[in-house]
Amino acid sequence: MRGAAAPPAVLLDDARGGNRRSLGRLLSMVEAGGTDADEVATLAHPLAGTAFVIGMTGAPGAGKSTLTGRLTALLCAGGQRVAVLAIDPTSPLSGGAILGDRVRMDGVAPEQVFIRSMATRGHHGGLSLAAPGMLRVLDAAGIDTIVVETVGVGQVEIDVVSAADTTVMVVTPGWGDAIQANKAGLLELADVFVINKADRPGASDARRDLEYMLDLGPAAHDGGRWRAPIVATTATDGSGVADLAEAIERHRAWMTEHGELERRRAHRLRDEVRSHALALFAVDVDARLASSAGRAIVEQVTQRRLTPAAAARTLLQTN
Amino acid sequence: MRGAAAPPAVLLDDARGGNRRSLGRLLSMVEAGGTDADEVATLAHPLAGTAFVIGMTGAPGAGKSTLTGRLTALLCAGGQRVAVLAIDPTSPLSGGAILGDRVRMDGVAPEQVFIRSMATRGHHGGLSLAAPGMLRVLDAAGIDTIVVETVGVGQVEIDVVSAADTTVMVVTPGWGDAIQANKAGLLELADVFVINKADRPGASDARRDLEYMLDLGPAAHDGGRWRAPIVATTATDGSGVADLAEAIERHRAWMTEHGELERRRAHRLRDEVRSHALALFAVDVDARLASSAGRAIVEQVTQRRLTPAAAARTLLQTN
Repeated sequence: MRGAAAPPAVLLDDARGGNRRSLGRLLSMVEAGGTDADEVATLAHPLAGTAFVIGMTGAPGAGKSTLTGRLTALLCAGGQRVAVLAIDPTSPLSGGAILGDRVRMDGVAPEQVFIRSMATRGHHGGLSLAAPGMLRVLDAAGIDTIVVETVGVGQVEIDVVSAADTTVMVVTPGWGDAIQANKAGLLELADVFVINKADRPGASDARRDLEYMLDLGPAAHDGGRWRAPIVATTATDGSGVADLAEAIERHRAWMTEHGELERRRAHRLRDEVRSHALALFAVDVDARLASSAGRAIVEQVTQRRLTPAAAARTLLQTN
Repeated sequence: MRGAAAPPAVLLDDARGGNRRSLGRLLSMVEAGGTDADEVATLAHPLAGTAFVIGMTGAPGAGKSTLTGRLTALLCAGGQRVAVLAIDPTSPLSGGAILGDRVRMDGVAPEQVFIRSMATRGHHGGLSLAAPGMLRVLDAAGIDTIVVETVGVGQVEIDVVSAADTTVMVVTPGWGDAIQANKAGLLELADVFVINKADRPGASDARRDLEYMLDLGPAAHDGGRWRAPIVATTATDGSGVADLAEAIERHRAWMTEHGELERRRAHRLRDEVRSHALALFAVDVDARLASSAGRAIVEQVTQRRLTPAAAARTLLQTN
């Protein structure tokens, strides 16, 4: 076992050899940000690019966690190494459960699955930096499939999950989820729909609603676009989970064939560059605001002689 | 009645005279962003600075909306002009109700209260720009008190609400809200606690938990700090709402006496300058990313020869 002071290069070697504790330490370094995170990224980036990322989103209570557990168990049974990255909401006021309660994976060999929970709060540069950084490490460590799951409903969480290779949207019968999701433009984020709790009344109505909305969507009139399939599952007893895995696999094959997988991944990396640039700039802005010139500009705003927007433009011209 | 093409200056005059439709149009201009929003801010900023802003936050289902309605009615009865800015969650998956269902204000003269709902999604530059811009317009229009209420649980919503002059955190008995809020560091955001649904079992436990945590907090050992009072309410029948109004008023008086009100408002304006600067920079970053130099840099990232962080640093050096 390596000591606490083991450098990132050693930890990454160990993690690639299957050492879970080393993998955990690398992830903590990325979460903490700073120069360690930079070094980990430099080591991991050339080794990454092969893991497949599945995003799971949907309303609280839709059964995403149970479904994630079932799907993970299935992928592990197929010989894959799987990681689950559960994004917990920032605020405990949403009532998110503790990870241990949420992911149940009976019959999975512990060395095949790696589970990590990350809070949405307190990340250097925000979740938009920490999450892709953690995916990179898991990828470089030899994980085959990463399931990113969000408990929450915030924009940031949805952005992270929908940046996956395949985004799965979980709805339940009888709650009008499909119609609500359509209103918010969330339907376009989904590559695969799951109607979970499909043994409950209203499942066929939910399917009909979804099909109807997909009929009105772009894929209905453009054979070159992917039309999200709808899979019925009952996560609690596992029925339909094999269908879900198969639908994800078909989406993956379709993306590979159409160059879409490469495009998505390039887009994700571009977004990550953008997030880093914004974070670097934020540090610069804070320094400007703290300078005497910056304080004089803010003073003009508090004296109501300058609007915040005008002050920002002036601030960007200071040195 | 003014036509649709009325310029912001005319609309603001009308709004200050009590024209609700003109006020609504100005708010829509601010929400939309762009040059109109800039012009509205330039007109409104010198006239603003007198409205008192109350933030209402807490778990979904805690009764914030009913409480907001009751508090608003009470303030109106005291002769104030009151506005409610309800921040709806980005995602409909959280099950937020429609504003009309949430704010009930029996017996309030319609000309005294102005209610506006804003979605957290789709704002130019995000909620951190749109929300303060809307507060500024309401303030300049002569509103005395603005209640900002969030349905949601996301970090951005909490940031906006907690930037109020007085932040009210609503908890309910029996759900461990207080303990959860403490874990997340939310206790420090609250200037006033409300235990709503105080007629339910567990109200005295909730109060004891809160008092205990406040005893451990900074205010317990520093007489120069404000210690958040705990108010018990039953919003459905209105009991305790006068105590809440009184607690808010005491906090306001304390802040005024200690220079804290001025500090908070200066801080809020400083944050708004920062948000504008970041939004301006984001436009610049996007232009850089779209340039041939930017695309070449991203290409190196997708080829795994450069990390996103290193690419961001390089990008900021391009012109």
